[in-house]
Amino acid sequence: MPSIDLNCDLGESFGAYTIGNDEAILPFVTSANIACGFHAGDPAVMRRSVALCKQYGVQVGAHPGLPDLVGFGRRKMDISPSDTADCVVYQIGALKAFCDAAGVPLHHVKPHGALYNMAAKDRALADAICRAVQQAAPGAILLALSGSEMVAAARAIGLPVASEVFADRGYQPDGTLVPRGNPGAMIEEEDRAIARVLRMAQEGTVTANDGSTVALQADSVCVHGDGPKALAFVQKLSKALPVAGVALRPF
Amino acid sequence: MPSIDLNCDLGESFGAYTIGNDEAILPFVTSANIACGFHAGDPAVMRRSVALCKQYGVQVGAHPGLPDLVGFGRRKMDISPSDTADCVVYQIGALKAFCDAAGVPLHHVKPHGALYNMAAKDRALADAICRAVQQAAPGAILLALSGSEMVAAARAIGLPVASEVFADRGYQPDGTLVPRGNPGAMIEEEDRAIARVLRMAQEGTVTANDGSTVALQADSVCVHGDGPKALAFVQKLSKALPVAGVALRPF
Amino acid sequence: MPSIDLNCDLGESFGAYTIGNDEAILPFVTSANIACGFHAGDPAVMRRSVALCKQYGVQVGAHPGLPDLVGFGRRKMDISPSDTADCVVYQIGALKAFCDAAGVPLHHVKPHGALYNMAAKDRALADAICRAVQQAAPGAILLALSGSEMVAAARAIGLPVASEVFADRGYQPDGTLVPRGNPGAMIEEEDRAIARVLRMAQEGTVTANDGSTVALQADSVCVHGDGPKALAFVQKLSKALPVAGVALRPF
Amino acid sequence: MPSIDLNCDLGESFGAYTIGNDEAILPFVTSANIACGFHAGDPAVMRRSVALCKQYGVQVGAHPGLPDLVGFGRRKMDISPSDTADCVVYQIGALKAFCDAAGVPLHHVKPHGALYNMAAKDRALADAICRAVQQAAPGAILLALSGSEMVAAARAIGLPVASEVFADRGYQPDGTLVPRGNPGAMIEEEDRAIARVLRMAQEGTVTANDGSTVALQADSVCVHGDGPKALAFVQKLSKALPVAGVALRPF
Repeated sequence: MPSIDLNCDLGESFGAYTIGNDEAILPFVTSANIACGFHAGDPAVMRRSVALCKQYGVQVGAHPGLPDLVGFGRRKMDISPSDTADCVVYQIGALKAFCDAAGVPLHHVKPHGALYNMAAKDRALADAICRAVQQAAPGAILLALSGSEMVAAARAIGLPVASEVFADRGYQPDGTLVPRGNPGAMIEEEDRAIARVLRMAQEGTVTANDGSTVALQADSVCVHGDGPKALAFVQKLSKALPVAGVALRPF
Repeated sequence: MPSIDLNCDLGESFGAYTIGNDEAILPFVTSANIACGFHAGDPAVMRRSVALCKQYGVQVGAHPGLPDLVGFGRRKMDISPSDTADCVVYQIGALKAFCDAAGVPLHHVKPHGALYNMAAKDRALADAICRAVQQAAPGAILLALSGSEMVAAARAIGLPVASEVFADRGYQPDGTLVPRGNPGAMIEEEDRAIARVLRMAQEGTVTANDGSTVALQADSVCVHGDGPKALAFVQKLSKALPVAGVALRPF
Repeated sequence: MPSIDLNCDLGESFGAYTIGNDEAILPFVTSANIACGFHAGDPAVMRRSVALCKQYGVQVGAHPGLPDLVGFGRRKMDISPSDTADCVVYQIGALKAFCDAAGVPLHHVKPHGALYNMAAKDRALADAICRAVQQAAPGAILLALSGSEMVAAARAIGLPVASEVFADRGYQPDGTLVPRGNPGAMIEEEDRAIARVLRMAQEGTVTANDGSTVALQADSVCVHGDGPKALAFVQKLSKALPVAGVALRPF
Repeated sequence: MPSIDLNCDLGESFGAYTIGNDEAILPFVTSANIACGFHAGDPAVMRRSVALCKQYGVQVGAHPGLPDLVGFGRRKMDISPSDTADCVVYQIGALKAFCDAAGVPLHHVKPHGALYNMAAKDRALADAICRAVQQAAPGAILLALSGSEMVAAARAIGLPVASEVFADRGYQPDGTLVPRGNPGAMIEEEDRAIARVLRMAQEGTVTANDGSTVALQADSVCVHGDGPKALAFVQKLSKALPVAGVALRPF
């Protein structure tokens, strides 16, 4: 029986500021990416987020980001591979300490936002991040965009890697995402999005924006819990997959 | 043969800013406390500092501080024990990741500045910090002010603890430091300072500011490398101790 | 006809983080205190907050806080009067630039959170803040706790000052607030709270927690817009005052 | 008699960290760009820097940078023109408050580091910055790279602008700088550098890296005080110019 993982971002609150609805989405996902204090999150939020994952049996991942709190790590930055690696080691270590304290393993690492996007296309940055993950979290799995430079960089050094796909995004014939703003970038209809995920999990293919069929590694689907609509979709997806014969299981 | 450790703060530079003369002091100390990014230090500085310690055979310690970069962690803050513990876990984890990456053990944890001073007198804060160290760095030793609440808190939970003394500070009959600004707070004469350290290491006693003899646990002496005078004193002290029969050895 | 001002905190959002319901409360207040980026707020939020005040005809105040974003400026800090003054000058200037750009005057300055509370009791800090306000915002009015050291410090140097009272807090016979957590600290019943504000505005007195009558300068009432209950109270209060013959007018 | 301004960066220290030799260079320059807390500087440093400029009769400029302290504002960032403008307004206001407190005018604004470089080539960013300067500091002059988009943007909205040239950089036939790392990027010989500045000031021309003569607006020369060599050059340059008939005068 084929299986897939549902992952969500978690622990993005900061001090007096709350973002997301962490407790609402945890029952429906199998792994979570916890912010590590650079783009979001703070030490108290990290401790509570790890505890929540433990409570719900959800795998804990580190979600390192760029040092840009006011920009939520979403703004590309001209940061060197070396500085990037140091930031990733630092953030992984910080989260791992909370995992150690709670007695749960650090399951994976997924770079956040602009770092995720930059590293998907920049091999030098991808190499630096992969070495950082290997050094700071031996045994942890990298979670990266399916077909990206990150996946290639991980394989090159023997770092375990899982490939992430998106239910609500269109794909191009070469397996990359249709850029936001372009026609076909977003898959709006929920049933169509669910059908695409099913096919990715079962057959490892997706229909690209030119109608062609593209092969795609699909280990995990990225889902969101912000807003009632997103949450409803996660519930729907997490019910539809097992019914159609795809188990929900961490990568 | 009695022994004592010489410890210094390390890795306090930040971005384009340099503080301290890290390479100059490392040949003369046996352990170092590396800033973890809250009051000083940054990820790149932490990586380089761990590498320097490895190169010089100096034991690596985490030096967590208050979240106050502009104040260098020297300003007391009304932070709860719980938030303090979270900040300590976070910073220990961050440094530990660089230790793991470099293949050196995290030997100890020494709170910095205002955190060190607050926790020396505040048992609830001391308890919180000790639990944080135990959880985030199992096996690491706490380095704390000799005779302080921190030492008591560590012993109460079975956390290994080393007692720190000061060569250049006066002591009161109860074993606490003469507050800065008071008569006898500072020991200015270098030879007298060295003689006091020798006696602390050999006999476990010091002459208090009222002339009485005070028993004192002395596992490590805090030294500084900022400025040529401080550095010259460290060199002198590190030579005088072995000559007088006190080995330099990490706690 | 007696009058009183209703003031609220505004612009406490930060980057991707939203706090408060700024547009909902603005129709009911006469002045607003805008966060200046140290404890909350960011440049974009400040620009939008000034524009909102202009749109609703609400007087703009600067709301400088301690440099403690993760603690929302609520944690006391051992900051020197000189550093405090510099932080206040900096934050006032930053907000004033947005006022200048929008063509609205900077009407007042109200310190935030722990800074407000510390300065209410610490004359040296109060003096430093008052001089900072006078230098950085000539013509602006200080808004400070009625009967506090801040009010005394402002008067001593001829800085215009308005006295702030609380609808939902109990007072002690000496005019200070009943500390939170003590019996009588909070006035829960809305009608009683409104009646107290009316009497403060009309007679300049309030019933203390021992039943005695205390004289009190009441230029402005602090109100909150976070949560439907707080907002409903502001609406009720802003209606009740004019009906009872107390005009709503900025100090 | 032709004249030129010598400008230097100032006030880049932060908390316990010191950068630069501010008092040493001030006797030789006519204007200074003071960091405003985003890439460097803090409120206390800003106050002291304004006081130093007043003491030495040096014109005060704001030196706003990207929100990147650990990167010293040197890393390009994908920041929107609107967010950039808000950051510039904020920082100008903060410095202007210290100018107001000290009774000195805010003479000019010069963007720092990556912001300077990005805006030199990106017209939308340049437009946003120019509007921000005009709104937050009416009467202040923009100081920008000679021949850049910033100069064009300033002229388009009637913002007074001064053109900056570099003594130690090579120019291309189109008036832009030879990129660092390319042959001819740096002018190493001091006498040649001084001769180039003289010709820029007197004739408004410079020899490009292909040997051609390029027209160039030269209102101010950027100089540095970090390190004895840089300082010695500033002294030499500031003596040579008047001797050769070029007055040192703020733009």
